[in-house]
Amino acid sequence: MTSTDRTPATSADQTRAADVGLLSPVRAGSAVEAATGDVAFLQAMLDAEAALTRAQACLGHAPASAATAVDAAARAERFDVRDLALRARAGGNPVIPLVADLTAAVPGEAAPFVHRGATSQDILDTAAMLVAARSRSPILDDLHRTAEACARLAAEYRDTPMPGRTLTQHAVPTTFGLKAAGWRGLALDAADRLSAVRLPAQLGGAAGTLAAFETLAQAPASGPELVEAYAGELGLDAPVLPWHTLRTPIADLAAALAFTTAALGKAAADVLVLSRTEIGEVAEGSGGGSSAMPHKANPVRATLIAAAARQAPALAAVLLGSLAAEDERAAGAWHAEWQTLRELLRLTGGAARAAAELAEGLRVFADRMRDNLGLTRGLVVSERLAAELGELLGRRAARELLTEATRRAVASGRDLRDVLEDVLADEPDLKDRIDTRRLRELTDPAEYLGSAAALVDRALRRTPPPSPPSSPPPSPPLRNLP
Amino acid sequence: MTSTDRTPATSADQTRAADVGLLSPVRAGSAVEAATGDVAFLQAMLDAEAALTRAQACLGHAPASAATAVDAAARAERFDVRDLALRARAGGNPVIPLVADLTAAVPGEAAPFVHRGATSQDILDTAAMLVAARSRSPILDDLHRTAEACARLAAEYRDTPMPGRTLTQHAVPTTFGLKAAGWRGLALDAADRLSAVRLPAQLGGAAGTLAAFETLAQAPASGPELVEAYAGELGLDAPVLPWHTLRTPIADLAAALAFTTAALGKAAADVLVLSRTEIGEVAEGSGGGSSAMPHKANPVRATLIAAAARQAPALAAVLLGSLAAEDERAAGAWHAEWQTLRELLRLTGGAARAAAELAEGLRVFADRMRDNLGLTRGLVVSERLAAELGELLGRRAARELLTEATRRAVASGRDLRDVLEDVLADEPDLKDRIDTRRLRELTDPAEYLGSAAALVDRALRRTPPPSPPSSPPPSPPLRNLP
Amino acid sequence: MTSTDRTPATSADQTRAADVGLLSPVRAGSAVEAATGDVAFLQAMLDAEAALTRAQACLGHAPASAATAVDAAARAERFDVRDLALRARAGGNPVIPLVADLTAAVPGEAAPFVHRGATSQDILDTAAMLVAARSRSPILDDLHRTAEACARLAAEYRDTPMPGRTLTQHAVPTTFGLKAAGWRGLALDAADRLSAVRLPAQLGGAAGTLAAFETLAQAPASGPELVEAYAGELGLDAPVLPWHTLRTPIADLAAALAFTTAALGKAAADVLVLSRTEIGEVAEGSGGGSSAMPHKANPVRATLIAAAARQAPALAAVLLGSLAAEDERAAGAWHAEWQTLRELLRLTGGAARAAAELAEGLRVFADRMRDNLGLTRGLVVSERLAAELGELLGRRAARELLTEATRRAVASGRDLRDVLEDVLADEPDLKDRIDTRRLRELTDPAEYLGSAAALVDRALRRTPPPSPPSSPPPSPPLRNLP
Amino acid sequence: MTSTDRTPATSADQTRAADVGLLSPVRAGSAVEAATGDVAFLQAMLDAEAALTRAQACLGHAPASAATAVDAAARAERFDVRDLALRARAGGNPVIPLVADLTAAVPGEAAPFVHRGATSQDILDTAAMLVAARSRSPILDDLHRTAEACARLAAEYRDTPMPGRTLTQHAVPTTFGLKAAGWRGLALDAADRLSAVRLPAQLGGAAGTLAAFETLAQAPASGPELVEAYAGELGLDAPVLPWHTLRTPIADLAAALAFTTAALGKAAADVLVLSRTEIGEVAEGSGGGSSAMPHKANPVRATLIAAAARQAPALAAVLLGSLAAEDERAAGAWHAEWQTLRELLRLTGGAARAAAELAEGLRVFADRMRDNLGLTRGLVVSERLAAELGELLGRRAARELLTEATRRAVASGRDLRDVLEDVLADEPDLKDRIDTRRLRELTDPAEYLGSAAALVDRALRRTPPPSPPSSPPPSPPLRNLP
Repeated sequence: MTSTDRTPATSADQTRAADVGLLSPVRAGSAVEAATGDVAFLQAMLDAEAALTRAQACLGHAPASAATAVDAAARAERFDVRDLALRARAGGNPVIPLVADLTAAVPGEAAPFVHRGATSQDILDTAAMLVAARSRSPILDDLHRTAEACARLAAEYRDTPMPGRTLTQHAVPTTFGLKAAGWRGLALDAADRLSAVRLPAQLGGAAGTLAAFETLAQAPASGPELVEAYAGELGLDAPVLPWHTLRTPIADLAAALAFTTAALGKAAADVLVLSRTEIGEVAEGSGGGSSAMPHKANPVRATLIAAAARQAPALAAVLLGSLAAEDERAAGAWHAEWQTLRELLRLTGGAARAAAELAEGLRVFADRMRDNLGLTRGLVVSERLAAELGELLGRRAARELLTEATRRAVASGRDLRDVLEDVLADEPDLKDRIDTRRLRELTDPAEYLGSAAALVDRALRRTPPPSPPSSPPPSPPLRNLP
Repeated sequence: MTSTDRTPATSADQTRAADVGLLSPVRAGSAVEAATGDVAFLQAMLDAEAALTRAQACLGHAPASAATAVDAAARAERFDVRDLALRARAGGNPVIPLVADLTAAVPGEAAPFVHRGATSQDILDTAAMLVAARSRSPILDDLHRTAEACARLAAEYRDTPMPGRTLTQHAVPTTFGLKAAGWRGLALDAADRLSAVRLPAQLGGAAGTLAAFETLAQAPASGPELVEAYAGELGLDAPVLPWHTLRTPIADLAAALAFTTAALGKAAADVLVLSRTEIGEVAEGSGGGSSAMPHKANPVRATLIAAAARQAPALAAVLLGSLAAEDERAAGAWHAEWQTLRELLRLTGGAARAAAELAEGLRVFADRMRDNLGLTRGLVVSERLAAELGELLGRRAARELLTEATRRAVASGRDLRDVLEDVLADEPDLKDRIDTRRLRELTDPAEYLGSAAALVDRALRRTPPPSPPSSPPPSPPLRNLP
Repeated sequence: MTSTDRTPATSADQTRAADVGLLSPVRAGSAVEAATGDVAFLQAMLDAEAALTRAQACLGHAPASAATAVDAAARAERFDVRDLALRARAGGNPVIPLVADLTAAVPGEAAPFVHRGATSQDILDTAAMLVAARSRSPILDDLHRTAEACARLAAEYRDTPMPGRTLTQHAVPTTFGLKAAGWRGLALDAADRLSAVRLPAQLGGAAGTLAAFETLAQAPASGPELVEAYAGELGLDAPVLPWHTLRTPIADLAAALAFTTAALGKAAADVLVLSRTEIGEVAEGSGGGSSAMPHKANPVRATLIAAAARQAPALAAVLLGSLAAEDERAAGAWHAEWQTLRELLRLTGGAARAAAELAEGLRVFADRMRDNLGLTRGLVVSERLAAELGELLGRRAARELLTEATRRAVASGRDLRDVLEDVLADEPDLKDRIDTRRLRELTDPAEYLGSAAALVDRALRRTPPPSPPSSPPPSPPLRNLP
Repeated sequence: MTSTDRTPATSADQTRAADVGLLSPVRAGSAVEAATGDVAFLQAMLDAEAALTRAQACLGHAPASAATAVDAAARAERFDVRDLALRARAGGNPVIPLVADLTAAVPGEAAPFVHRGATSQDILDTAAMLVAARSRSPILDDLHRTAEACARLAAEYRDTPMPGRTLTQHAVPTTFGLKAAGWRGLALDAADRLSAVRLPAQLGGAAGTLAAFETLAQAPASGPELVEAYAGELGLDAPVLPWHTLRTPIADLAAALAFTTAALGKAAADVLVLSRTEIGEVAEGSGGGSSAMPHKANPVRATLIAAAARQAPALAAVLLGSLAAEDERAAGAWHAEWQTLRELLRLTGGAARAAAELAEGLRVFADRMRDNLGLTRGLVVSERLAAELGELLGRRAARELLTEATRRAVASGRDLRDVLEDVLADEPDLKDRIDTRRLRELTDPAEYLGSAAALVDRALRRTPPPSPPSSPPPSPPLRNLP
């Protein structure tokens, strides 16, 4: 049934049932959302069908006119996607009704060359790879934007001290540059992993032997050549074997996507902490406002990334679980992949967009970091004091001195440095070994940053992965028809 | 922005990005799909807003005319759901733009009474509960259909022997009635669990203290009364406390839905095994056909249920994980729930529909079960023989006899009974203790069914849970306005 | 092989491979850890075997002497648990070697009555239920301790104002009492759900028909009676049907355990926020110290609970997934439950213990809460000001006034109240409508708590579930032998 | 507390609580189980401590004698692992008590050089990487064994026809060689992914700046050099940055391990199907027996692999979720990794061992495959018939002919070929176009294998990844001390 036939009832039904992003602001309106909608999947299935006929025409297994006809008909807007969805129930997948509609949409002489020799899974898996390839480009773009923005932050705040926090407590000083360099590293790790995923076309016929292609073309042993041609038409990798139940491509994609989303969740988790009202060391460029509470500048992007990071690993687990697929086509494991992969692509695409915006717009309050470093009244450098005083006074004496000074500082609310000066004043033999100036140096958090700056420099020397493969052409032109 | 303002660009974008069920045949076209679409969520949010104003009017905190005005405006078709989805990004949830549009859609004098005192989460959580309630009814209906159909199967095949299979191998005989009774038990277990989930309205204001409601109404201590009235308007339970970050309702729902889907997966797993070409003991009423392979009658419904059962537990894990929500509103844990809950409802609704169809249409081939019982040539009753012969001959002698007879039966391809007769013929002292007729009885699988029939009878005495609560009215009429 | 036979090699091997809690401090040394160790599982299997023989003796299907003999032999310390683990590989479950060893450990005349008629799954499932029952008691005890400690906190801090936080930002004031009441509510929800889980014994024989029991006892139709007697001996529920592949009990347990752990994760998440160095509103009774950083008082218990809450839902997902179990015994779904259930019990037991300690020892710093309420310089009550001033000045005028005042307060670092006084001083017509005293009242966070106290009172009226069922006797005495 | 101090109480407690593999036969007694036990983790922590002191000695930051002393003391057998586990609760990780015990175990002058400058996470993360490296070797060995055995199967059964099965139904013929080649491909995919995971040492100090190392050594900027030396001592990769909350190594490991286990689950799923009593095309080398049911040869290894494949993705999801780790050390995300990673390593190690045994011992019944191909009475080649007859008779006429013949064949239980001959006999004009010999050829499943053999050949040309990196030395000797 093509779009001209669809009834208003179908449209109304479609409207009610549709997911247009209302419950998933992280991806609403994103490039990846558009690239993974049902119409996009439909177009990708049509692209696969058209590529198959073209490839067969290239090998002389189909007339060029059939390839031209299928190409012309293979336009998603000519089909009623909701109607296809409803008719998919009968056979359990949308390719069955699509082939019927596509066959009806071409001239009679081209009809036998629609979907010739293929199985539904050839088309649906190939479509999933096309959709993944088309989604990968914007995700990689956003990862690169994120990495670049983090690189700028790391360079700008290379020497900006802030409290290092462990188990929610101030530990010792670190720098914001080092933190931003770490975020960048994760974004690059994600780009590396996502770029490396191979996205092969799928073509095997009913049980993966390519028998029907060869039989229908009266061309024994031509199957592997057809697979090459088909993959070439699509701009996808050619597989070693049909992978109907050898799901490495799906599993690799799942792992890389979940990695990406969860890794972006690290930066989001940091931003959520650092933008707390009490901490205030960073703020999103334009926080979500609240009409009733004008002081609120919610870290909305970090929140949405964090939400995505909670969902992505579970979706990946479903996809990894689908590796355990019986027979030449699994009854369930395969079907569980479709919606799950789409949602995972969408979450990742949304999280990457949000991360790029977050990193590019992040406001950093170095003064507040400095202020917060003083909150423990010097205790944030107690590790250093223990080390340095231990050197001067012996380990045990230093520890006793520090324990006592800490006790007094906490009890009195005074700075550890002042308390130490008092304590030392009472102990002339110690006093000689450490002067006030040295003590001030030792208790300055900004003087206890170790190799933070050198680590930032080293991390920034890492280059991003080569520019991402461009997305396969949405509907490639005919090539080399004999 | 109301629907009259929407631009064609928005509509086109919506069309591309929309999920209308193409990748999820299990739920395409189902009642639950319609009840959980974005428009349905939008209507539920509007129902919550309208109920709030009505409840405030009931308590004299708002003029009746405002309640009437909000009621009149609260029609999903008046709003552009895609536009709301896109604008939700700024603040991270769709209620913020919805309140703006709803306010613009009522007369000026009613505007201050829109969303008065509420926080976004009050509306979104309440909407989720409404959607859950509206989805629960058809799910429970389908569980009851499933249970009834299984009850019929259990009764009809109460005494039909079939191979009991453990770790893929024939073990000892069982009956198809017992298997169907087990499926029914799981469907009833699911109905019990799902019926028992409490679905409370949400109302707390910005941080759950109800302060804004009381302040705006100049009605100290009136908050709890307002919550009761609001829940009453909606046909939902009234909560003990605002549950913005006390997510028991979501977690309970998640557990019951995942239980339901996975429990239906048990019947699906059995059907997938039993309808294998080599086994052929059952077939779906109308299997999915294949044009190229006319002999294929794919167990499509079982496949789609099995696929749902692979996804549901992972989605439930996300929702259970969201229990660990910090503060008075969590930055991420809450946002991770929305899409996840929708997908889980849809999978469950789809699986329940498919299960009802599967159970009602299942074709059972008792002859094939009987044939398959003979496949091990009598070994399927070796447990019984060991027991009975042990009684007659002593445990060790019986085991030796059986081991030898089994070896010979396997080697020769003869029936164990025949081999045993031969063996016994050679051992006159044993022969006296067991005659041929008894041996035939002992080796008849249909005579070794233990209490299967009694178990079926007992299981069928279990009554289904009371008829499910009717769904809350989609948009209840005004009540008791002063 | 009993313990006297074990070789040193086995012991050394056991030592190397053993998990004794080093990587799971949340449960190391807990009652539930001991109740779920391999020796505890071994004892539970032996308890099941002994109960079976006793039940058979009660029905006259076995001599009393056999029951006595099995009871006497069924002591875990007499068996080599590591050796059983190694031998379990051959058949895929530990019951097979255990039955061999138990049979060898009783006098020859009792040997035929060991495991008579049972299948491995009868014993292993029953053991799992026993272990679950024995683990449930300490978990419920700790949930009750937690609830009681939270009730005390809720009562003591019923009126203690603190910042309500949403999406990490101060929103409006709430009380610590309301927060603690919420924690209690979740602990009671968990206790309710865990108490309600039915833990049935398992007895069905090879394929769930009870045929072997009846055949061996020459007692047709006696199977159901035997199941009752067996369950009674064990202090477990009697099942309606054998549940070898009807896994409701496991799924219910999984859901309740994951709920419990994740719900405790809510309190942990709050404590982790509130004990941050910058916030400092609570501290654990005795935080984890750091020798090098004496100022650190890590929220260790909250950390360990949070870690458990991240793991439990995933384990529950595995168990829920195992509902989809084919045949009369599933090849994999069943086997995936054992270790998963153990780990889930342990995480829950550990989290409950940690939560009780956390709640009982929590130090609350009301002064710090008060100080933090001032951090936004009055903006935390802007919602109230908007409401009250809107009433006085009209909604639009109030909003403009507040927006201007907020701008100035943020820019100058002054309190909103002071700025408002200045602004009002310039606008005589407004000034008359609101005096300074009223303004001070309106801007006092402690005066804007809504129904927080009333909600606490209501929540505390909820009573805990009835005292938990006592654990089944570890090894019940013989009863009613004929 | 060293082992000499441990009390009997501790030992008894340890015995009760220990997991020695009783519930996880898939890994009981495996090399990976031993490599991941608590003692192995303890030794790895000690190896990290010793390597740190050695590295410091190499740089002249510690006396050689201290390195020697720490090396000598760093023997797991000198420590009480259960006692460490219990004491780990106080601070939330086992390194804290271990450092105390190790310090006590060295001469006083070496004591200050124990754990000098390090944080607990440096040691625990490094230990996890060492354990992963030591576990990886046997896993890779078993994957190679699996791949080799599958290669042999693929070669031997390269041309052996069997039914290709899709959605549980016979589809068209395939070969067992192609199936085995697919299994091999997955095993090689797993080996590739696992080999590629980088396992870096961890060293950063309290907040990842390396400050304490430099301060204590009075060697500014020496941190990065120390990290290199430390990693070198351990045979691990040197990290770009400290990765306390940049968890790429854990996430990569998680993905590769879950991939491995789930990919092995594919072969297991196939074996479980093919060894069903009704199918009988393969059997495990030595199936798990059942004393009461001598005919049962359970596919035990496949079952245990299948069980592992159900668990691994969920564990990986927990680890991927831990990427979202706040601050410089996360409160919960880090702690959730330890036990989860251990269990995942164990499942993978066990599954790999079982897969190697399964593949090496698999018995293949080519006759049974051939018999099963006949079960559909020729319909398994209906796809081919449709194609070939379509060529001869026209697509529509061929379809009508086949539909009628199929109907008759199903109704009569006759072979499709015989029915077709009858039908053709009635239609002289068709009969001329196809002779009996050709019809017999067309209906022979063994003649419809497409490119199966060529695909096998191509797949077998793929070479395994280079031999796995050897495991790091358990406790490397001192090097280059100045």
